[in-house]
Parts: sequence; C-alpha cells; structure tokens
Amino acid sequence: MDGKKRTEIAELGKFGLIDRLTAGFAPARATTIKGAGDDAAVIDTGDRYTLVSTDLLLEGVDFDLVYTPLRHLGYKAVVAGCSDIYAMNGTPQQVMLALGVSARFSVEDLEELYAGVKLACKAYGVDLAGGDTSASVNGLTIGITTVGSVARDKIVYRSGAKKNDLVCITGDLGAAYMGLHLLEREKRAYAGSQSPQPKFEGREYILGRQLKPESPREAIEALGRAGIVPTAMIDLTDGLASDLLHICKQSACGARIYLDRIPIARQTSEMAEELHIDPVTAALNGGGDYELLFTVPLDRQEELFKLGAGIEVIGHITDESTGVALTTPDGEDIALTAPGWKTREK
Amino acid sequence: MDGKKRTEIAELGKFGLIDRLTAGFAPARATTIKGAGDDAAVIDTGDRYTLVSTDLLLEGVDFDLVYTPLRHLGYKAVVAGCSDIYAMNGTPQQVMLALGVSARFSVEDLEELYAGVKLACKAYGVDLAGGDTSASVNGLTIGITTVGSVARDKIVYRSGAKKNDLVCITGDLGAAYMGLHLLEREKRAYAGSQSPQPKFEGREYILGRQLKPESPREAIEALGRAGIVPTAMIDLTDGLASDLLHICKQSACGARIYLDRIPIARQTSEMAEELHIDPVTAALNGGGDYELLFTVPLDRQEELFKLGAGIEVIGHITDESTGVALTTPDGEDIALTAPGWKTREK
Repeated sequence: MDGKKRTEIAELGKFGLIDRLTAGFAPARATTIKGAGDDAAVIDTGDRYTLVSTDLLLEGVDFDLVYTPLRHLGYKAVVAGCSDIYAMNGTPQQVMLALGVSARFSVEDLEELYAGVKLACKAYGVDLAGGDTSASVNGLTIGITTVGSVARDKIVYRSGAKKNDLVCITGDLGAAYMGLHLLEREKRAYAGSQSPQPKFEGREYILGRQLKPESPREAIEALGRAGIVPTAMIDLTDGLASDLLHICKQSACGARIYLDRIPIARQTSEMAEELHIDPVTAALNGGGDYELLFTVPLDRQEELFKLGAGIEVIGHITDESTGVALTTPDGEDIALTAPGWKTREK
Repeated sequence: MDGKKRTEIAELGKFGLIDRLTAGFAPARATTIKGAGDDAAVIDTGDRYTLVSTDLLLEGVDFDLVYTPLRHLGYKAVVAGCSDIYAMNGTPQQVMLALGVSARFSVEDLEELYAGVKLACKAYGVDLAGGDTSASVNGLTIGITTVGSVARDKIVYRSGAKKNDLVCITGDLGAAYMGLHLLEREKRAYAGSQSPQPKFEGREYILGRQLKPESPREAIEALGRAGIVPTAMIDLTDGLASDLLHICKQSACGARIYLDRIPIARQTSEMAEELHIDPVTAALNGGGDYELLFTVPLDRQEELFKLGAGIEVIGHITDESTGVALTTPDGEDIALTAPGWKTREK
C-alpha cells in the first residue's frame, strides 16, 4: 500500500496464499494437535479431541440477498459449520454466530435469519452457544464458529490417504453450482421487472442444493456404525478437483477418479446443458455441495458397498508420481488443477 | 424487506437485540455449560472447561486503515480474542483467523497483518490454529475465534456478583477512545495534504492504547497466584458503564462506583480537555480499552491491595433496587445508562 513490492493475491491462488501466511507459525502448546491446514483445528482436551472451525459468509461473495431468503441463509451458515466438523469425522455440538449488520436490516430480518439458524440447530443437534451482533457499513457479514468432538482414535485428517485406498463421495455433485447459475440467470432476466415470475419449475432440486444445502450426517453415522474410519476426509466446498488435490497434496499421493463414476443429478445435467456448461465441469469445479470426499482402505470395500447411505466409490489413490487425474470412458487421463483466486473489486 | 413490520435495530439497542434473537435457544447438549450471553461459550470437555469466543472486526467500523498499520491490526485482533478468554478467568491457547480480503490488498499487506498476529501469539502464548482467507467485495473483514481453557472451579461468569463485593478494574480507562479521537482529528486535518505531519508528540500512550492495546494478562495471573477467584468478570470493550450494567443485570444487583476512583491517564485527560470532552465520559462510554472489570468478595480486600498488578477498586456492589450509579465527589449519584446502537448507512 506504500510503494513497496506488491504481489497480487491472484498470483499465489487461495491455497498458496494461506500456506505462505501461516508458514512459520509452528504450534507451541501441547494441546494444539492440528493447527492451520485442515477443516477444523484439533485441540487436545483430555479423553476426546475438541474440533473448532470458523468461517466467514460475506454478502455479495458468498450470498446474494436478491434471491437468498434470510431464513435459508441462517440454515446454510450452520450447515457450513457442521460440515467442517463432519469432515474430521467428528460430531458438531455448538455453533456461535457473529453478525455485522448495516442499517438496511430490521430486527424482523434478523429474526428470519435466526429462525433458519434454529431449524438447522435442531436438524443437526447443535446448540447455539453465542450470538453477537454489531453494526456494519457494508451489508451483512456472518462469522460462524463451530465446535465439535471426536474420539482420539477416530479423528480423520486430510493427510492420511494411502496408495490403493478407495476415493469415495457422498451424494451427487454440481447441483449447488447449477442452482446458483439458474438463480443468477433469473436475477438478470427479471432485473427491473415489476412482477418477477422466475422459471423455477422442475428445478427445485438444484435450487434447494444451493439455497438450503444439507450435510451428509447419515453417511458419517453409517460409517461410524460399521466401524469404518476413513483414512482422509474433506468437505466438498471448493469443488471436487480442488478438494481432491488437497487430500493428495497433504497425503503425498496421486489419484485417479473416473468420469462415469461421478454422480450428477438429472436436474444438474439438464440445467448444465441448457446453459452450455459441461456437467462434469460443474461437478469438478462448482463447489458449495457440502458433501464429503474421503478415502477408505481397499479391504473395506465390501462393507462399504453394503452401507448405502449415498456413498459412491469414484476412484482410487495412486502413487504420488502419477499425479491427480480424471479418467474419461475412453481411457484418457485429464490432469486436475485447482481453481484460482476469485478477484473482486475495491 | 418486503413490506412487513419493520423494527429498527436502534430501537432495541445492541443488547436488547441479542437477547431477542437468542431467546428460545435453550441448550440441549449436556456439554453446553454456557451458551450465548457471556464473553465466551463454555463447553464441558472433561477435566476442564473449554472456552470459545468469536469476534468480527470490520473495516470502516472497527478499524480505519488510513491510520491503522496492518501489523497493529493483526496484533489487536489476537488481543481482542484473548481478552474474552481472560474475562472468563481462562488461559487463551489457540486463535483462528478468517479473513475476507478485497483486491485492494496485496500478499505483502496480508503478510504485515500476519506479522502482527505472530507477535501477539508470542506475547500471549497462543498458537495460530487456523487461517482461512477468501475474496471480499468490501475491504477487509477479520473473523477471530479464540479457544481457551479453565479449571471447572475457577470459571468466572458475568452473573456471580454479590452485594458488598468490591468492583475492580485493571489499568486506566478512556485512553483508547481519546487515541481514536486524536487519530480522527489528524485524519481530517490532513485530508488531501501532500506531506502529512500529524501532531502525535506527547500522545504516544493514548495512540498505543488505540492501535496496539494489551490485555491485562498479569492481573489475571496475579489473582490466580493469590487464589482469588472473582465473583463476576467482563472485558471492557463497550465502556465501563455498559459493561458494569451487564454484570449488574446478569448478577441481579446494583452498584456504586466513585468518580474520583476511576483511573484516567494524564494523556487521556489532556486530550479530552483539548477536545472539550469530559474525561470521565471517555472512561465510562469510550470502550476499546481491553481492560477487565471484575468483582471480588469484600473479605479479600487486604490480599487484593497487596497484589498491585494495576488493579484498582472503584466501587462496590449494592442491592438490585438501588440501581447502577456513579457517585460524584460531592455525593451526587448519576444513574448509568447503556449506549445505543451505532447506526450505519447502507
């Protein structure tokens, strides 16, 4: 800001940036089991580990209030927090909300937001353990902190994937991203219109996945009952490609996933075709699905198949030297790359 | 937002709003010892309680980058988080940072911010346990989450003050607020000037209190060594009046504090006089001092006096019916009131 060397954040990308900023912060306390670099911090609190995650949701970046009901936004904030805890194989227990609110918002608006928070707290069995609200000059900012718990021998990091492990996901991918595209299209189409009648019929699934996503709690619980502890896990918020690259980088391994194994819902494909977007691209780079990506030792394959719970095997872990790639039905390997930094103005 | 009843947030005030929003969120989990309504959430993690606090620092509201060096801001963010943990009589252990950053900021800018975070982590003995950074459309947003620990029998809430307890504070008050006024004045005076030469000589103390506040770690440690557990405690972020009202409301008691007992630094008084502000008003309503306000049973008075550690007794707790008031040297009682909601545009 003062004439010194200026490196644009976009040059490093999001994860290069975080690596650079948090380098040299070696944990000094014995209770800090895992610091920066996973879905949640891991803190030794005796019998069990305590997990803590924190997220920001910013108006104009993470949500658009033109088409996002505040109740849905409150719900989604809690789901986003729980998702980080599930991704460590933990159980979310408490959430805390810190809001920055401009004068545009009324008390009733915030009550709507909190009504969504309440619904999600009930659905996921978490308590609201803190709610602070302060004035903002720029719309709505939501800080969400989630606390969870996990047995010491059940914790799952991003770094534990081993060669030959199965690469698994819950649910289907790309739907949230196509829901977002649909909402953006209808917003543009009806800008200035007196009586907006957006065309949402037959699109309810992808809209729901964008506006009110759910975390695959049942899959985590089913794995737990079967005694299957994933070797690595991450929640799918940045997109399959980026999140698989995280696991592979932190586990020092490669991976092959198969294009025809990636579950894509019918509405997702239809919407993608209508907008001339490749549905697989939506699944790989879309993000916002809040599903889980995890790896399981090959010898648990039979048990895994019996589980159901929306779990699909989409590939396997390979040697680091082979890279991370998507294999097409005709046997071609396409190297996966991480998305860059979304540059914003001002 | 859609023609329904609209209540302005300013009508309820900050704390009325939070009470209204968090009402009806009764904790359901046995591990949630204390939910909303104190400096930090209290979570039962076995032998000890785990404390978690979360704060937002918003550009244009909580800081102005025209006169706030990013390094100082990073330092202050960590101090603000630690302050919440000390206010529960706990020891801060981990901090997590979530940044929203617009394209105005370079990698070097964020490195400056993190350099301040690192200094504060070292000074307060906390580990950085998470650092996320995402794009923002509106300047800089900092979410700071702090985790601490406290023995089950040493935890201090806002709600434990008893009649006849001594009302104590650490340090002196109003300095951060007068530092802010000075910075704002110099900003206005030199707006558009080619070679700004702000007049900061002899004002270093109040500037430091605004730009790089410290949390009274030594006072907490001294109380701990002496075996004194406060009956109630809060950190002084909103101002003495507001924070004392919190303790009294949650403890169902009244209080008398004495005007001539409130410690005000010389630079604070001088600056206040220059700006025609009553120094006591700065101390009562200024906020941002990050000192601690706490109550101690009367029978620990002698031990307390021996401690030093910058602790001052400024009054005592009374019956709820007598209200919360400031007593002037000529014996007049002035009722204390909480500040309202700072309304912001947009």
